[in-house]
Amino acid sequence: MLTDLIAAIMQADNIIIHRHINPDPDAFGSQMGLKALIQHQFPQKQVFAVGESQPNLNWIGVPDVIADVQYAGALVIVIDTANTARIADPRYTTGQQLMKIDHHPDREPFGDLSYVDTNASSSSEIVYDLAQAAKWSLTAEGARCLYAGVLGDTGRFMFDLTTPKTLRVAADLMATGIDAPAIARAEDQLTPNMAKLIGYALQHTEVTEAGAGSFILSTAVREQFDVPLGLEQLAVNYVGKLTTIDAWVMFTEREDGKYRCELRSKHHPINQIAVAFGGGGHPLASGAVAKDLDTCQRMIQTLDQLLKEQR
Amino acid sequence: MLTDLIAAIMQADNIIIHRHINPDPDAFGSQMGLKALIQHQFPQKQVFAVGESQPNLNWIGVPDVIADVQYAGALVIVIDTANTARIADPRYTTGQQLMKIDHHPDREPFGDLSYVDTNASSSSEIVYDLAQAAKWSLTAEGARCLYAGVLGDTGRFMFDLTTPKTLRVAADLMATGIDAPAIARAEDQLTPNMAKLIGYALQHTEVTEAGAGSFILSTAVREQFDVPLGLEQLAVNYVGKLTTIDAWVMFTEREDGKYRCELRSKHHPINQIAVAFGGGGHPLASGAVAKDLDTCQRMIQTLDQLLKEQR
Repeated sequence: MLTDLIAAIMQADNIIIHRHINPDPDAFGSQMGLKALIQHQFPQKQVFAVGESQPNLNWIGVPDVIADVQYAGALVIVIDTANTARIADPRYTTGQQLMKIDHHPDREPFGDLSYVDTNASSSSEIVYDLAQAAKWSLTAEGARCLYAGVLGDTGRFMFDLTTPKTLRVAADLMATGIDAPAIARAEDQLTPNMAKLIGYALQHTEVTEAGAGSFILSTAVREQFDVPLGLEQLAVNYVGKLTTIDAWVMFTEREDGKYRCELRSKHHPINQIAVAFGGGGHPLASGAVAKDLDTCQRMIQTLDQLLKEQR
Repeated sequence: MLTDLIAAIMQADNIIIHRHINPDPDAFGSQMGLKALIQHQFPQKQVFAVGESQPNLNWIGVPDVIADVQYAGALVIVIDTANTARIADPRYTTGQQLMKIDHHPDREPFGDLSYVDTNASSSSEIVYDLAQAAKWSLTAEGARCLYAGVLGDTGRFMFDLTTPKTLRVAADLMATGIDAPAIARAEDQLTPNMAKLIGYALQHTEVTEAGAGSFILSTAVREQFDVPLGLEQLAVNYVGKLTTIDAWVMFTEREDGKYRCELRSKHHPINQIAVAFGGGGHPLASGAVAKDLDTCQRMIQTLDQLLKEQR
């Protein structure tokens, strides 16, 4: 219940907010937005947002660097993170109380208090709900972070988890006076290197007759465009823009020679393929790791077969 | 006043809706949406949407083909069209009454009745306002068309004309049960050929130190990707995604060997350059024609110089 969360937040003098590693705009936005809203409502509380910094998300907020001692007696909130293995900064266990807030399926429940709403588009939308339930004022600074998170996780209202409520939340956030279109443009922009890599992806995506798209990114090509490992993931959504693609997978060669596989689908669930290859995730967005290119090819064939059966 | 428009629509037995040539999703969406809403509310009225068909917008609706005699005694509504020269189908003058509905600046007023709201994000948003004022039911079919129009003219809520009200209108439209994310994906998708051309553009865009971006598309390259003249314009917005670009120009070689120049800017007005080269347009989006590649290069230098001065 949101009321339990609100009570715990009201009682704590010291609050430390964690999120997941490899943060995306919703991880950063929900974390920084929650911090801003609590801090504004309770200026006397100490509120921190921790985890590795992410230069390309600095425009949303910059993580705090805090001493271990700060955790003594603290309420630790872990947001937007389904499982403990993905929590950024291992000190999350060293507080007094642990709270989980998330919108991903609750496969690994943790925390003394937990609030998971899989109907929410994003963790940022849940922070909005929390603020509404608590009757906290929606400040422009908090709204700016949350708007960035909602846009990030919904692909700017293009993914199926978008609801009429999501759009109403976005309207309320924008009504605080934030420059919402500028936030959209900030998330839409590409560094020259990323633009070249995405240009390469659009030119080298393969599509089967049944609509299975695939793009394999080798370390050599990624390094040619000087794009650090992880940032290339932005190309996944671009590949999916092709009219001929129903479901697709992007393979990125990792430093250990294995391939990160990001599976996406426009309509039909494809997460059973991720599971079959040792991974998992959402029905329309899941991931796995392939040990070599042969395994990548098998995954493409499996996806193609699935689409053929569904036609 | 919207009430005058509603009264005229209620009185007419025969309504013919026009929009502009070279239609975009808002022209089609507002036209087809208005038709659907009137037709649902008044099944006994004859309502038509005319103008040339546009295969890539067929998913919004297909224009009606009607005889000249249909205009006798008709109420003609021209939507989303600022000036008469751009009205699709010249028969708009042959009805009994002419009504203008638009959100562009009213540089050329026309019609017996006119409603122009430049604060609306799109003509589709105005049709929503009209339906609300008239207390017409918002059907899913009408909402689907209007949602497509709102997304088109706001660049999916990324352009500055987006307001909190625009997002609330979008929420209401989505609440009719339409698959709003699917509409977003339909507008976002790229044919494989366009994807390759945009990929090429992202790899061949040049940027000066001052932030002047340029991309020259020769006929040879355009034909290599089998993209018909005109459709390549979709690449203009992609080029502008580069973080290093403040203003940019895309040159497309035409059949007569001259170059179509599309100038865009993120912040500083650049239409004086379009004017200096014999063209014109909006402060942040204007166009001209260059007679050869040397003229294109001069335009890039002029843009670069302008950006240097504004730094």
